[in-house]
Amino acid sequence: MSTASPVRNIALLGSTGALGREALALIAAHPERFRLVALAAHENAEELVRQCHTYRPRVAVLTDASAAREAEQSLPQGVRLLAGKAALTEAATLPEADTVLCAVTGIAALPAVVAALRAGRRVALASKEILVAAGDLICAMKTGELVPVDSEHVGVAQCLAGRKISEVSRVILTASGGPFRDWSRERIGRATCADAMRHPVWRMGVKTCVDSATLMNKALELIEAKHLFGLRPEQLSALIHPQAAVHALAELCDGTVMAQLSNPDMKLAVQYALGFPERLSSRPAGTLDLVKLGKLEFFAPDEARFPALALGREAMLRGGAAPAALNAADEAAVKLFAQGRISLPRIWELVETALERCGNYDDGTFESRLAADAEARRLVLERTK
Amino acid sequence: MSTASPVRNIALLGSTGALGREALALIAAHPERFRLVALAAHENAEELVRQCHTYRPRVAVLTDASAAREAEQSLPQGVRLLAGKAALTEAATLPEADTVLCAVTGIAALPAVVAALRAGRRVALASKEILVAAGDLICAMKTGELVPVDSEHVGVAQCLAGRKISEVSRVILTASGGPFRDWSRERIGRATCADAMRHPVWRMGVKTCVDSATLMNKALELIEAKHLFGLRPEQLSALIHPQAAVHALAELCDGTVMAQLSNPDMKLAVQYALGFPERLSSRPAGTLDLVKLGKLEFFAPDEARFPALALGREAMLRGGAAPAALNAADEAAVKLFAQGRISLPRIWELVETALERCGNYDDGTFESRLAADAEARRLVLERTK
Repeated sequence: MSTASPVRNIALLGSTGALGREALALIAAHPERFRLVALAAHENAEELVRQCHTYRPRVAVLTDASAAREAEQSLPQGVRLLAGKAALTEAATLPEADTVLCAVTGIAALPAVVAALRAGRRVALASKEILVAAGDLICAMKTGELVPVDSEHVGVAQCLAGRKISEVSRVILTASGGPFRDWSRERIGRATCADAMRHPVWRMGVKTCVDSATLMNKALELIEAKHLFGLRPEQLSALIHPQAAVHALAELCDGTVMAQLSNPDMKLAVQYALGFPERLSSRPAGTLDLVKLGKLEFFAPDEARFPALALGREAMLRGGAAPAALNAADEAAVKLFAQGRISLPRIWELVETALERCGNYDDGTFESRLAADAEARRLVLERTK
Repeated sequence: MSTASPVRNIALLGSTGALGREALALIAAHPERFRLVALAAHENAEELVRQCHTYRPRVAVLTDASAAREAEQSLPQGVRLLAGKAALTEAATLPEADTVLCAVTGIAALPAVVAALRAGRRVALASKEILVAAGDLICAMKTGELVPVDSEHVGVAQCLAGRKISEVSRVILTASGGPFRDWSRERIGRATCADAMRHPVWRMGVKTCVDSATLMNKALELIEAKHLFGLRPEQLSALIHPQAAVHALAELCDGTVMAQLSNPDMKLAVQYALGFPERLSSRPAGTLDLVKLGKLEFFAPDEARFPALALGREAMLRGGAAPAALNAADEAAVKLFAQGRISLPRIWELVETALERCGNYDDGTFESRLAADAEARRLVLERTK
C-alpha cells in the first residue's frame, strides 16, 4: 500500500539544449509524476515548435524576439507564446508550475531563478554558471527550494543524506578526465573543438564538452558544491576517475567514505532532482555492473597540464564576485575556442587574467555578480581582438 | 558550540578475543565517550586479570568456573568477580551499563543478548552466529536496540541511512576472497589452518580466519544482513573485492548505488557501533587514499570452488532454524579443521549434510534454534568420528 506520489508541474527553461531534451523525454515518460507546464528556449524556434507539438505545454517562451516571430504561426493551438528575456521569468513563476528545471547554459536565467525562488518554487538548477556566480546568494534565500541536477552534486547530496554537515571532512568530485586526459601539453595546445567534443563518457553540448576537456567543469562544480553544501574550500577536491561510475565521495570525520555510483547518464540525476524527495523506481541509466566494469581507478589530477582546478580554487578562496568572473571569462573564451579563434590553453590564460583583474568588487548583490560577469567577458574580448 | 555527547557505560562480553581486545583499546582511548563497566571472558583467566588491572572494570566474568577460581586471587581491589554461564547474563544486564558489546564467538552469549535487549539495553552485536541463528527473533524484539558491529553491516547501515527500505533493490557485501582466492580446487583440498590464518587483509581469530577462507563468513553475513535490514534473500549477494576498501554497497530502485568505504580495520566499525548515532571524530582506520590504492576491483565469487555462498543462500531460503544448523555445523567443522582432523572442503560437505538433516523443526522460539544448533554439532561429530 503506497500512497500516490505528488505530480510535479514543471516549467523547463532551456528545453532545446542537450540536458533540456533529455529532461523532456524523461518528463514525458512519467506522466504519473511529471506534467509539463512550460517550455522555454533562447532562439531555436524550429526545435521549440517541434517540442510544443510533441509535448503540448500551456506556455512556450523564446527569449529571442525574432525567433518568437518565426515560431508564432507554427505552434499548435492552446500553446501561449511569450517572447523576450522577461518571458523567462514569467515562465519560471507561472502559478500553474510548482517546479522549475533550469537547464539554460550560462548565467542568462539568473533573474528567472531568483524570481522562482522568491515565489516559493522548487528550482532544480542545472545551470552551473548561475550557482558558481551567485550560489552563495541563492542558497541564502529563505524561500523556495534549490535542488542540484548535476550528477556530481546529486551524488554528494546522496552521500550526505541522513548526516550532519559537521560530520563531513571532505567532499570529492570525480572527473572522467576528458578526451585530453593522456595528451601531452604540446598536443593539448593543438587540440580543436572537434577533439574536445569526443568526450569518452558523457554526451553533452559544446560548452560542457570544452569545459570537461579543460577540467574547468570540475572547477565550476567544486565552487557549486561549496555553495550547495556549505563547505569550506579546503574540504573540496577532485579525483580523475576514467570509468565515471563513482560521481562523488564524502569523507566523514571518522575516516568513513561514502560514495555514490551509477552508470554515467545524466537522465538519472535529472530524474532524481525532479522526483526528490521521492525516488522513482525506473532506471534511466540502467543497472551498474561492477563485475563487468572490472575496476574503478582513481588518479590525482595533473594540475600542471590542467590548471583549471587551481584557478577554481583561487576563485573559491577569493569568494565574492571572483567565481562570477572566472565563469564568465571561461564562457567567453570557450566561445572563441569553439570558433577556432584561440587555442585550448589560451582559455586557461584568459580565465587567469580575468581572475586577476575582474570581480574585485562585491557588495553581496546579484548586480555585483552580473557586473563581474560583464567585466570578465569584456576583458576576454579585448584581449583576443 | 557542540553539546557534549553522552557517555556510554559499556559491558564487554568476550573481552579476550581478537575483537574484544581491539574494543578495549578503543574504549580506553575515549574516556570522554566510553566508560568500561564490565568485562567478560570464557576461560582465559590470565588475560582477563591483566585486562582488569589495566582497565579497572567494576565487574569481571569468567564463564568457566575453574578459570574463575584461578583468577580470584590476582584481581585488583574493587573488581567484583562473577563465575559461570549465568554470570554472562548478569554482566549484560548490570544496571550500571547502558550498552553491551557482545564479541563472544559462537552462540554462547545468546541468552545474555536476549536478556540485555529485554532489559532495554543497546546491544552492539559482533557475534555473527547469534544473528545468524536467531536474528529474526532478536530483531522482532520490541525492547532494547540492536546495533551491528561487523564492518560490512556497519557499511550497509550507512548506505541505507536516510533512505526508506522500499527504495532498496539490492545489498551487496564485499569479501576480500581470503587467502585461497586464487588457489585451485586441488590445492584448497590440501590447505592447512596455518594457511587459512594468512589472511591478506584482516587480522582475526581462528574461527573468523577459516570462515573467511571458506567464504562461509560471507554466507553468514548475508544471513545477518537479511535479518538486520529486513531484506529478502534475492536482494542479497556478495562480490569479491581484493582491496577490501568497499565494505558494502546498496543498489537503490532507480539504479543509484551507494557504497561505504574505509581502510580495512575493524576498530572503525566498533567505534561507529559504540558511538552511534553520534560519530566520533577520531580515525582508528586512518584515512583512505584512493589514489594510492590505485584501483578497486570487483569479481563474481566462484561458487564452484567456494560453495559456502550457495549453502548460505539455501539456509536463508529455508529460514527458521536452518541458519542455526548451518552456523553450528560450520563452527564444529572449523574446530575439527583447526585440529588438523578434516580438510577444508570437508567443512562445506559437513555443513551441507547438516543443512539437509538438521534445523527442520522451528517454532519461532530461541529454544528451537538452540536445538538445531545442538543437533548440527552432534551430526558433525558423528560424521567425523
